[in-house]
Amino acid sequence: MDIQTAEKRLYALWGEIRDLNAASDLLEWDQDTNMPAGGVGARGKVVSTLEGLKHQSLTSTELGDVLERCAAGAEQDSLLAAQVRRARLDVDRAVKVPRALAQSLAEARVTGFHAWRRAREAADFKLFASELEHMVDLRRQEAAAINPGGNAYDALLREFEPGAKEEDLVPLFSGLRDALIPLVRSVTERGVEIDETPAQGEFPTQSQLEFGRSLAVAIGFDFESGRLDESTHPFCIGIDRGDVRMTWRYEGHDFRAATFGILHETGHGLYEQGLPADLARTPAGSPVSLGIHESQSRLWENHVGRSRGFWRWALPSYREAFPSAPECDVEQIWALLHTVRPSLIRVEADEATYNLHVIARFELERALFGGGLEVQDLPAAWDDLYAELLGVRPTDAANGVLQDIHWSQGMFGYFPTYTLGTMAAAQLFAAANRELGNLEQAFARGEFQPLLDWLRDRIHRHGGRYEAAELIEKATGKPLAPDDLLAYLRQTTQEVYGELA
Amino acid sequence: MDIQTAEKRLYALWGEIRDLNAASDLLEWDQDTNMPAGGVGARGKVVSTLEGLKHQSLTSTELGDVLERCAAGAEQDSLLAAQVRRARLDVDRAVKVPRALAQSLAEARVTGFHAWRRAREAADFKLFASELEHMVDLRRQEAAAINPGGNAYDALLREFEPGAKEEDLVPLFSGLRDALIPLVRSVTERGVEIDETPAQGEFPTQSQLEFGRSLAVAIGFDFESGRLDESTHPFCIGIDRGDVRMTWRYEGHDFRAATFGILHETGHGLYEQGLPADLARTPAGSPVSLGIHESQSRLWENHVGRSRGFWRWALPSYREAFPSAPECDVEQIWALLHTVRPSLIRVEADEATYNLHVIARFELERALFGGGLEVQDLPAAWDDLYAELLGVRPTDAANGVLQDIHWSQGMFGYFPTYTLGTMAAAQLFAAANRELGNLEQAFARGEFQPLLDWLRDRIHRHGGRYEAAELIEKATGKPLAPDDLLAYLRQTTQEVYGELA
Repeated sequence: MDIQTAEKRLYALWGEIRDLNAASDLLEWDQDTNMPAGGVGARGKVVSTLEGLKHQSLTSTELGDVLERCAAGAEQDSLLAAQVRRARLDVDRAVKVPRALAQSLAEARVTGFHAWRRAREAADFKLFASELEHMVDLRRQEAAAINPGGNAYDALLREFEPGAKEEDLVPLFSGLRDALIPLVRSVTERGVEIDETPAQGEFPTQSQLEFGRSLAVAIGFDFESGRLDESTHPFCIGIDRGDVRMTWRYEGHDFRAATFGILHETGHGLYEQGLPADLARTPAGSPVSLGIHESQSRLWENHVGRSRGFWRWALPSYREAFPSAPECDVEQIWALLHTVRPSLIRVEADEATYNLHVIARFELERALFGGGLEVQDLPAAWDDLYAELLGVRPTDAANGVLQDIHWSQGMFGYFPTYTLGTMAAAQLFAAANRELGNLEQAFARGEFQPLLDWLRDRIHRHGGRYEAAELIEKATGKPLAPDDLLAYLRQTTQEVYGELA
Repeated sequence: MDIQTAEKRLYALWGEIRDLNAASDLLEWDQDTNMPAGGVGARGKVVSTLEGLKHQSLTSTELGDVLERCAAGAEQDSLLAAQVRRARLDVDRAVKVPRALAQSLAEARVTGFHAWRRAREAADFKLFASELEHMVDLRRQEAAAINPGGNAYDALLREFEPGAKEEDLVPLFSGLRDALIPLVRSVTERGVEIDETPAQGEFPTQSQLEFGRSLAVAIGFDFESGRLDESTHPFCIGIDRGDVRMTWRYEGHDFRAATFGILHETGHGLYEQGLPADLARTPAGSPVSLGIHESQSRLWENHVGRSRGFWRWALPSYREAFPSAPECDVEQIWALLHTVRPSLIRVEADEATYNLHVIARFELERALFGGGLEVQDLPAAWDDLYAELLGVRPTDAANGVLQDIHWSQGMFGYFPTYTLGTMAAAQLFAAANRELGNLEQAFARGEFQPLLDWLRDRIHRHGGRYEAAELIEKATGKPLAPDDLLAYLRQTTQEVYGELA
């Protein structure tokens, strides 16, 4: 088989795998937005049949042969080499993880979810402990299958953040932690309370949706190629670059949850809509990693949506959308968007403390998969770590170790991508701001296209062509580091709370 | 392989085929309700990949062997024999129709649709003629592949109405035609015009939806296992008995379109929700045929929804839903629901003339596939037949031969199922009415459960266990015939227009 034939065949085979993924994505979206309760049973079977067919395709001898032929013939650093690398991420997992183990993992996710939900409701970790032990055990087996004799946590990270290694994350996260802890502590010690009442009031569902939607349109989301629906947990699924579906959640008492939720998902959505059309249905046509995805959502949510410039532009439509909300000016809103207050729940955390929540989980995951931590000791370790990092201690397991769904789904190695993305967002925004001039002035005029164009050029249009580290270095001129994020957080925090120690 | 093993394996293999169908159903529903315009291109590929996988499964040697084993071991008239018969309908088509022909048909449906739409907009049959010729040619080839040397039209009918044969339909439809033509003519000659203004007025979208939804709930549709959404063309898709999705269309000037559209789709939906749980994902777990499906929709739409009893119960909520609609009483509404007026467009036709529209198409299809009619002569043949059957002549091709989408999609043999269903509805309702006592009195009290229970018992719970003819005879005690439909139409027409010649 000549290399051109092999390459063509690779794309044909991958196209079918991608189509199965698209069908699964739609099933998932539908499940969270539209499916009637009675559909649960049958839907589970449909999802599992599609998974089975995808597994068949990924493990077919033909795909294996084609990939080998492409790998042998691809020039170093060529697009084809990237296609092979990306394809092998999925193929490796499918080939190396025994069918029985994959099946056990799928079942453990279902039972794990139910046990976790019951345990969280009862605030009783014991109701979840044995399920979690089972899950950790299965994931250890899986890691050993994927990366035999190697670092188990790296094997888990690969699923969410290809190319990331524990040994590289440790210094990155330590640098962040060591600077954040004193920053947060000095705010706490100052004891200044920001009045949050201006953000709280009457925010009718329909107005929140319309306001959020208008922001999504303004920053560049194309509703001819996407949707925004309501769901219990906000998410964004890119079924195709022409069909990107975001959801939001109504939380009426405070406009921030929905507004910044929608801006966050729109950041994800803009990335999906910007993926390269010519790589569609090929391995390298997909997003790089969850970290890069999160960099896009955090950039629009935080660096755009929480900026003064943005609110100079947005305040009039905010007032129009919520006529009975409390009066406030740009400076008041701005301060509200940059308050710092250590708390127990990650998803309610502010920008400065958020990454400490993530770092706690990162440390615990590392300890579970390489440091000898046992599941039974997890709650105490969690509470101690919260006290150490954030200065707060959970009052029960529900606002402690049981707060997130991730581990019940076996998603170890997922949390770090939140902080990798947040770091990358700050670094990307700083680079864009340097290159494009003062972006806040543009935002104040409602001009977001220059920033979007820059992101399209530096990030979106490359799809999965490069690994995350390489892409960030290409885009910003330096390797990923916590500096820009720390500079941003110091700056905003000092403006709100005054010069800190 | 022993017979138990073969049977078990048949259900396992069929379950996966059914799951692929369920995924395709969801993709189709989504395309008509939610998919953003930008999703079209990618969606086409996903649908075609799933079709390809389904074809692979249907033509697999294993399924073929298992079916042969089951066929050899199944006792006559047993459930297993029915399973084999049902499975072979799909397997035969997949095995016998060459891949290239199936591919050409799929492509012809896309190009055919676009040519048809252009032609209809321009009211110019010439813009569609060559595409339609191509489609007829492909379907002739397909019929020859399915039923070599046999009746071509029977091979087409089998896709929509398994068991139906042209030679059986001809006398059924002639009996109907010969009675309907004079019935309709005597109404026309009488020259009485029913005042339709009470049905026309202001019917806000939301109120139409809520009113329609409340009717669906009242007659037994379970919204925990289904949905009702808006779309351009109303339809009902049963993804599973626990996930049945209906759609409706807003037509504001006249409440009847939406109300009876929803009742019609609810009839389909009740059938899907009543399919046997224990046969789910097996070949015999699916509906019998389009004709039986239509019998359920027509029964609830016409025999329930257009009855006096129904409106005695529904009028107060109608008034509440549409406070600014014209005043009217039950008798006025009832007369409006049984007007007879020959017209050109099938989907706008009344109950009495509707079947003449269908019979015209049936005659033309027979002529195309066995009677020597050529596509170029179709428009003239259409116009002449309308003049003969309905006494009206199309003014152009748009309100004549180009009005329906079906033929552009190669759906020859589909139209007769509308009339088979309408006939069966009348026969089923007459039988239920005899057995359960005066149903109209129950309707007037809002009691629809006895009728639904009867249909569940006689029709729904059997799934595809019996062929349509056998099922109707079992359910009503006699073979399908036009008598009950004719008696019903004579009765209502005479009540509205007085004793007819």
